[in-house]
Amino acid sequence: EDIAMILDLARSFKDINDRPIKKLPTLRGRTVVNLFLEPSTRTRTSFEIAAKRLSADAVNMSGSASSTVKGESLVDTAQTLSAMNCDIVVIRHKLAGAPYVLAQNMTAHIINGGDGKHQHPTQTLLDLFTIREHFGGFSGLKVGIIGDISHSRVAGSLAPALTSLGAEVTFVAPATLMPARPDVLGAQKSYVLTDDLLASFDVVYMLRIQLERIEGAPLPSLREYAMLYGIDARRLALLKKDAIIMHPGPVNRGVEMTSEVVDGSRALILYQVNAGVAVRMALMYALLGGDSDGTAA
Amino acid sequence: EDIAMILDLARSFKDINDRPIKKLPTLRGRTVVNLFLEPSTRTRTSFEIAAKRLSADAVNMSGSASSTVKGESLVDTAQTLSAMNCDIVVIRHKLAGAPYVLAQNMTAHIINGGDGKHQHPTQTLLDLFTIREHFGGFSGLKVGIIGDISHSRVAGSLAPALTSLGAEVTFVAPATLMPARPDVLGAQKSYVLTDDLLASFDVVYMLRIQLERIEGAPLPSLREYAMLYGIDARRLALLKKDAIIMHPGPVNRGVEMTSEVVDGSRALILYQVNAGVAVRMALMYALLGGDSDGTAA
Amino acid sequence: EDIAMILDLARSFKDINDRPIKKLPTLRGRTVVNLFLEPSTRTRTSFEIAAKRLSADAVNMSGSASSTVKGESLVDTAQTLSAMNCDIVVIRHKLAGAPYVLAQNMTAHIINGGDGKHQHPTQTLLDLFTIREHFGGFSGLKVGIIGDISHSRVAGSLAPALTSLGAEVTFVAPATLMPARPDVLGAQKSYVLTDDLLASFDVVYMLRIQLERIEGAPLPSLREYAMLYGIDARRLALLKKDAIIMHPGPVNRGVEMTSEVVDGSRALILYQVNAGVAVRMALMYALLGGDSDGTAA
Repeated sequence: EDIAMILDLARSFKDINDRPIKKLPTLRGRTVVNLFLEPSTRTRTSFEIAAKRLSADAVNMSGSASSTVKGESLVDTAQTLSAMNCDIVVIRHKLAGAPYVLAQNMTAHIINGGDGKHQHPTQTLLDLFTIREHFGGFSGLKVGIIGDISHSRVAGSLAPALTSLGAEVTFVAPATLMPARPDVLGAQKSYVLTDDLLASFDVVYMLRIQLERIEGAPLPSLREYAMLYGIDARRLALLKKDAIIMHPGPVNRGVEMTSEVVDGSRALILYQVNAGVAVRMALMYALLGGDSDGTAA
Repeated sequence: EDIAMILDLARSFKDINDRPIKKLPTLRGRTVVNLFLEPSTRTRTSFEIAAKRLSADAVNMSGSASSTVKGESLVDTAQTLSAMNCDIVVIRHKLAGAPYVLAQNMTAHIINGGDGKHQHPTQTLLDLFTIREHFGGFSGLKVGIIGDISHSRVAGSLAPALTSLGAEVTFVAPATLMPARPDVLGAQKSYVLTDDLLASFDVVYMLRIQLERIEGAPLPSLREYAMLYGIDARRLALLKKDAIIMHPGPVNRGVEMTSEVVDGSRALILYQVNAGVAVRMALMYALLGGDSDGTAA
Repeated sequence: EDIAMILDLARSFKDINDRPIKKLPTLRGRTVVNLFLEPSTRTRTSFEIAAKRLSADAVNMSGSASSTVKGESLVDTAQTLSAMNCDIVVIRHKLAGAPYVLAQNMTAHIINGGDGKHQHPTQTLLDLFTIREHFGGFSGLKVGIIGDISHSRVAGSLAPALTSLGAEVTFVAPATLMPARPDVLGAQKSYVLTDDLLASFDVVYMLRIQLERIEGAPLPSLREYAMLYGIDARRLALLKKDAIIMHPGPVNRGVEMTSEVVDGSRALILYQVNAGVAVRMALMYALLGGDSDGTAA
């Protein structure tokens, strides 16, 4: 289906990204706008690099610089970018649903670069890519998603995608960070990260503690959190022989996991970053590659 | 003359912008700097896209990031960019005359992207382009420019250009937003937007209420302003059969006009945005296209 | 040696920059990231233009926009950019040693764009280029570096380079702005700028008074500083027949030198700026030009 097609495309783009000359003429003459109304250099850079490696004209619009200064609404921004014949707009916005509003008012293709607590679909695609590359598929895999589930746009996208592909997802979080209805997202839940539970996972997906979002939430101290839910050398040794550790980055070293885990061989965090560029290239290619005048590869 | 030449060039660039592959090699190897010392994402994005579609190397320098942080003067910035062999510098500055200061100190070509209340020539060019496309010319057209005339760099550029091309311009504004001498700009004036006056216009050009510039001015409430000078469904029905509504954007929906007017068929606001990229490409082409080594088209 | 090779390369890139079409395909498909965690538009723009003229994909990451917002460490940023297959990262950081930390954690090449008070190697290269172009070499040249030595990353890089190439360097500064051990950098010192001393220099290198770094330091008033250490018309007349005046820019006109000196024929300040782009192109070329798949020139 669509996901498999994107992941297959990403496979070939990943190979290109590992070459010295990382450039395809595919999207030459196309205009890709990165409309980031919430700061996220890591994601914006990944999209910008993806667009440029496909030879698109990439233009950045950030929150502070944007004409939201003049009170322009999202609808007007969307219409303006359409009128400038932009082909793809990547939007990151703190409000869930902003990409949908944009899509309703644009002829350009919209890519959701993360909206509020809601969705972060390209992160999900790169996570799926990483898991598929490692295990060859999803069926029967046990995935533990650990941490700040209730504030995470990563978990909200990833869990339903994984269960629809045949994996089994368990949310592990303190009650204060657990969503009210994990079952709606297809997940089981556990308030405690027991050694047995950890040892059952093929994929240990650690979420970032979003300190800047919590602000006064009833979180235990970071030290306590790290003890209860973090991965350290002792817990690392409990993992299944082939299990992997993932994280959307950036890691709070010493909180979600210790530095030796981050930099160890089980952690595929940098593989995820690498896959991110390839997946974003694949998505842009899939959106535009087919409807051009034959000049695209 | 010069204006007609730019508008003719813009016509052909507009066609290119409407194609999937929007790219010409014309300015390959040229360096275009967008020096925006006042925020205006909309205009900056239009220039950046224009430069990139002509294959120029486009570099952004914004106010907050610029070395104005170090107290570098505009003259030194100009000399520095000249020394870097920049070919075109687009400047937006809050002081009237800044582009002139820059031009005196540079070998590069300067494009005025808007200076204070003074001038905004590329906006004027795109407005003229839009009017000419719709009516085929300017002679005998009646143009009403309505709103915050005294704070508008749009009106200061557009009115003299239109009258020199044979159109008849009327400023419509409350006394507090009317310049002291409309006749210097070639315009007549009216403090009231009567139904008869509105019905006489071929072009109804609504200016943006620049809330952020007024700050405590003796403006009536926005609601009162909208009643006295805004276009709503009732006033829309009074327009001449072929009349058009223009606005430099972004519209304060519900103030200058209601959303149904903005999104209706009479409003050419998005056409203006679209023309803006083409006009800016035409201007860059006219400045540089002819003096290259034969590689430009 | 290495420096001579870079300067020779820069010579040919300078010629290209003086042409209308300033573009080489050399770094096509390479990714250059400008990671500027301290504002410096002038230097960032020079690097960005250099990268683009070599056809590299150039991506900017600035301090305010970067994910340092999320507390990501420099090590994680380095690893992330490596994972995105970036080829060169230009870093500007206020902490001395930051480029070294980055280099330890990256496969990409690092270029130090200035770190704290420590080093600013590309500034040194462009200064050396300028001096070599003017005098044909360095042996026996007398160079006076005048001003805020203790806060200057320029002096810290330039002085040892010059002395290693056979020039003789004298620091001229009030005691409060003189480093404790000029001899460690290979320099002699003088607390006073006498007429005889000035007349002995082939190169008069004026440092910028970094007002924003000093904050309450025991500096005499700017007027007093200008009288004691600045170059005005009278002092200009004392210079050796072939002597030149240099400055890393931007000049505080009326402090380090008067406007007539800045804009006069002895000052090579804009030549330095021009050389800066060429030197940065040379450095990128030297780092990447040789290890590509044969597509680079």
